[in-house]
Amino acid sequence: MQNQKRVVIENVSPQINCGEFPIKRVVKEIVAVKADVLVDGHDIIAVAVLYKSENEKKWSEVRMQHVNNDEWQASFSLQKQGFYSYKVQGWVDYALNWQYGIIKKIEAQQNVELELLEGIAYLKSIKSKLSASEEKYTNHLEKIFVNNKNYDKAIAEASSQKLKEIFIKYPKKEFANATKIYRVYVDRLKAQFSTWYEFFPRSSSQNKDTHGTFKDCEQLLPRVAKMGFDVLYFPPIHPIGEVNRKGKNNTTNASKADVGSTWGIGSKHGGHKDIHPQLGTLENFKSLIKKAKDLDIEIAMDYALQAAPDHPWVKSHPEWFKWRPDGTVQYAENPPKKYQDILPIYFESDDYKNFWKECLDILFYWIKCGIRIFRVDNPHTKPFYFWNWIINEVKQKYPDVLFLAEAFTKPKVMQQLAKQGFTQSYTYFTWRNTKYEFMEYMDELTKTGQKEFMRPNFWPNTPDINPFHLQGANESMYVQRYVLAATLSSNIGIYGPVFEQMISEAISGKEEYLNSEKFQICNYDWSIENNITGIISKINKIRHDHLALQQTNNIKFCNVDNENLIAFYKWNDSKTDEILVVINLDSNYTQQGTLQLPLNDLGIAQGHPLQVHDLFTDNTYSWQNEFNFVELQASLPFHIFKINK
Amino acid sequence: MQNQKRVVIENVSPQINCGEFPIKRVVKEIVAVKADVLVDGHDIIAVAVLYKSENEKKWSEVRMQHVNNDEWQASFSLQKQGFYSYKVQGWVDYALNWQYGIIKKIEAQQNVELELLEGIAYLKSIKSKLSASEEKYTNHLEKIFVNNKNYDKAIAEASSQKLKEIFIKYPKKEFANATKIYRVYVDRLKAQFSTWYEFFPRSSSQNKDTHGTFKDCEQLLPRVAKMGFDVLYFPPIHPIGEVNRKGKNNTTNASKADVGSTWGIGSKHGGHKDIHPQLGTLENFKSLIKKAKDLDIEIAMDYALQAAPDHPWVKSHPEWFKWRPDGTVQYAENPPKKYQDILPIYFESDDYKNFWKECLDILFYWIKCGIRIFRVDNPHTKPFYFWNWIINEVKQKYPDVLFLAEAFTKPKVMQQLAKQGFTQSYTYFTWRNTKYEFMEYMDELTKTGQKEFMRPNFWPNTPDINPFHLQGANESMYVQRYVLAATLSSNIGIYGPVFEQMISEAISGKEEYLNSEKFQICNYDWSIENNITGIISKINKIRHDHLALQQTNNIKFCNVDNENLIAFYKWNDSKTDEILVVINLDSNYTQQGTLQLPLNDLGIAQGHPLQVHDLFTDNTYSWQNEFNFVELQASLPFHIFKINK
Repeated sequence: MQNQKRVVIENVSPQINCGEFPIKRVVKEIVAVKADVLVDGHDIIAVAVLYKSENEKKWSEVRMQHVNNDEWQASFSLQKQGFYSYKVQGWVDYALNWQYGIIKKIEAQQNVELELLEGIAYLKSIKSKLSASEEKYTNHLEKIFVNNKNYDKAIAEASSQKLKEIFIKYPKKEFANATKIYRVYVDRLKAQFSTWYEFFPRSSSQNKDTHGTFKDCEQLLPRVAKMGFDVLYFPPIHPIGEVNRKGKNNTTNASKADVGSTWGIGSKHGGHKDIHPQLGTLENFKSLIKKAKDLDIEIAMDYALQAAPDHPWVKSHPEWFKWRPDGTVQYAENPPKKYQDILPIYFESDDYKNFWKECLDILFYWIKCGIRIFRVDNPHTKPFYFWNWIINEVKQKYPDVLFLAEAFTKPKVMQQLAKQGFTQSYTYFTWRNTKYEFMEYMDELTKTGQKEFMRPNFWPNTPDINPFHLQGANESMYVQRYVLAATLSSNIGIYGPVFEQMISEAISGKEEYLNSEKFQICNYDWSIENNITGIISKINKIRHDHLALQQTNNIKFCNVDNENLIAFYKWNDSKTDEILVVINLDSNYTQQGTLQLPLNDLGIAQGHPLQVHDLFTDNTYSWQNEFNFVELQASLPFHIFKINK
Repeated sequence: MQNQKRVVIENVSPQINCGEFPIKRVVKEIVAVKADVLVDGHDIIAVAVLYKSENEKKWSEVRMQHVNNDEWQASFSLQKQGFYSYKVQGWVDYALNWQYGIIKKIEAQQNVELELLEGIAYLKSIKSKLSASEEKYTNHLEKIFVNNKNYDKAIAEASSQKLKEIFIKYPKKEFANATKIYRVYVDRLKAQFSTWYEFFPRSSSQNKDTHGTFKDCEQLLPRVAKMGFDVLYFPPIHPIGEVNRKGKNNTTNASKADVGSTWGIGSKHGGHKDIHPQLGTLENFKSLIKKAKDLDIEIAMDYALQAAPDHPWVKSHPEWFKWRPDGTVQYAENPPKKYQDILPIYFESDDYKNFWKECLDILFYWIKCGIRIFRVDNPHTKPFYFWNWIINEVKQKYPDVLFLAEAFTKPKVMQQLAKQGFTQSYTYFTWRNTKYEFMEYMDELTKTGQKEFMRPNFWPNTPDINPFHLQGANESMYVQRYVLAATLSSNIGIYGPVFEQMISEAISGKEEYLNSEKFQICNYDWSIENNITGIISKINKIRHDHLALQQTNNIKFCNVDNENLIAFYKWNDSKTDEILVVINLDSNYTQQGTLQLPLNDLGIAQGHPLQVHDLFTDNTYSWQNEFNFVELQASLPFHIFKINK
């Protein structure tokens, strides 16, 4: 048998999988909690969100407000990194109920002498909690409530806001009911707002046909910083296997000169805790990390859990691999395809716990060198529970560490990895081209449950993805794709300098780069500054200067009567920064249209004059109407407007 | 650290509130379970639903099939009343994975001697479970898998369906993962399919101005049976309070002759375990129950947990009420309104446990007299957890008992009562009038989560509800409302004979009956048979003869190009019975339109000839097209078609 509690609470949001996983936020964000709260009859109920960070013992409380149809809402803000817990508590507030009833009777001019007497019990029940002056007040009320001579004073005080506030301040919470505990994991801001640049260290040399080094990378830092990037991501920096090494363009027979794939990790020179000898020493790497930090750039490492056939583990830990009846080791397969340069880890091994610990140790090793960001290669081919464990273990000690999941796979698997702990995720961005596709995809990311756990990172290109729309495309298309990524998403990245130099030769019919840097050293003119680098720099600066672009979920598409023009409104939670973006999806021609402003969201009435300030060109326009003319040429196919009301 | 399990299962349906409440079914229904099941990489997984009734120790199992996008599905059927448990279990099937891989390699003409050797381990691992002949077979395979001489035979057997079936029959289920347990409560069919008739026993006399008795009620049973009703529901049959008794039309000052409201329960003649002296004795009541049963009618009692001021409890259990400082008992209030003929129960009483037990005892008392159905008065003014407890307690001992919630209140409260255990619920049916309103409401009831726990009971009228659309309405409107209820919903009820005799004088401007039977005895001519009684009888017979109408959730609306014509298709799960209903919502004029058949749902192609047999008129029409002409007059404003393909 339950006790006499009457309040029922259900449908709490936000939550993921019935509270199995914590939702995600960053510091200074809010959690807007909603819940359906019901009671029998018509008594007044009170509802609160109780919350605390993992270090706190005592719950903080914020009262919820009834919105509509038994839905209640309140928000609390997150000051610290780490876990916060929250739950919803509700109770019948007998004191407020008494006051509500007596007010109604007084208004109907009914005699309430009896009700006044009943009120005394509520005053007495909170006495022990009151301050001296509050107690003086309630003592006074107790006196006048019994005494008919003071009836008018009594009913005035009984109905008073002052008394109501005392009841709200000291709720008795009899027979209160509460939900289970839900959790939110709070990351630093970088989890939500990051601008990535990727290049291969071995291609960083200014000299032709020379294997780049970390020292060469240091020379390129100013360039990366100037363009406004704050994460510099390297494909794996470890020794590369020599057995079954891949040749140029992914051929299976490498020549002696071929450098192989950076993802074919492990050789006689070492494994996941070692550095490719041609890149430099550990000291070189630490120096690079530090120099980058001085320029506000974080080095991100590639975490690829697989082994070349000559990885040291094959000899030192044969139990971490699967062995065949003929004594050979099982290489990667997707029957009938064979990938003989890679050995997958045998996660079902009886020795799996030691393997998990070694994987964790690898991360700690590089973290102690100064690394705080890992881009994880193909996490969808390793067990979900492994990732959950290892991400948790790392973040308990190093809450600043961020993990980016590179899983181009089925949607529910991508989402599962995010739920299990990945900070950010690559997405289907490169395969969204039309206005409708973008609107639908952003709706999925920002309006469904995914908004609580997916942090999309939009990459216009990667070493694995040379999108058809960029192959042989003109400058306008490159600019368009960069602006789309950089304004739709607060996390973005490009694989340069292939991107800014518009290098796009492809393997015919595939979204693969010809002579891909994955399998050979490429030489770039690192000094090139062109229109694209200029635009990227300016856009990245705009991102850094505008809070509305440092988040992804607050987005609303605006109607434009032209399929080639996509427009959307973005805002930070407090709406101190409101941005309107318009992009021309036609990389060849000028496009015009009429854009409808979201007046409701802007909180303005028809005819209210606005100024829209183009943050790129510095032009300002005055708009008085709901519908406004926009025109974008292919040569500069976007507006990023700051809205000034 | 988890073990080596890799399968993740989420998003299980059906479920309510994360599995907090059991879903509802009736005997012979199925539960169609869905779940998202994920694994890393591309290995073959196997998924099963495990289920058992509460009496069974061992789980039964049915394998799930992959539908699309990682969603899996399987159904199991419910044979017994009571609770069933179910959960979803998934595992990587290494044996099937081995077989899948070897088949792909064989198709690509790769040599698979090594793979054959690897297969032996899987054969060995299931050996202990095999039958003699199965073991003979696998022993044979073990031999030929090692021996190169039998390579062709070996690869044929390795790829065989026979071997696959053995692996499916004896899954090793290594590192299997399973969800928590979900539950379904299975009622008898009556919970889902019931046809209710309500009248007041005190008005059952054939003589004017005479208080009816249970013996009089027995005289009316054949009439009720003939019209095809299988539940006969009485407002409360207990002694009626004399203190503050209500007079005619709900006046507060009753005359000596006034009989009062049947819901003002309790007087010197007794309380909830007693019978109003003018209705008869307990033996009379038991006799009535038995005679009804012989006609396949179940008597339903009204369970109203409140007391008149002279109810025996006020003296015997003052602690079950709230008392005021002046020594008087608290009557019902909704400030500033007062309801002085009713005392609400004080559920927060310290003695609440004894009250709960007494409430349960009341139910057991009447159950032992032969009652199996209770219509519960205003359950939304009593605590949710009380209902959960008492319904559970009753059904543990008497699983046949059904509870109908009469809660005309906020939607989430209505749904909460259903979740907490009420078998059926009154609905907003009387306030749905237009085609669009019906479509939207049925969508809400049958396509959202409500389909798992709400069992709607559609009442065209009740003693409390004299709908505006019936006030002064013509016969067509009465027929229309009955057909709407009787075909949209498998549970229906009417308050007669007010309904079939079109008695609809109202209190001006309200949906209240004038001279309501709630406050006085009414005299009816119980012998009247008219058009409406004839139509009701026929429709109820159609309901009894057609499984498609004995359920509510399988419904699909059909397009008709006329706002006055509503059409829908209903079917039983196995589609052995398919019904098409068309109703004219215009009670004055003939309406015509073109109806679009749901060819997909019917599983037929364009041009496939159909016969639609009008079950009411016995006419049959041949339809060859997707679009068909329909016409309905106001005099007979409906078709109920049996579809014959």
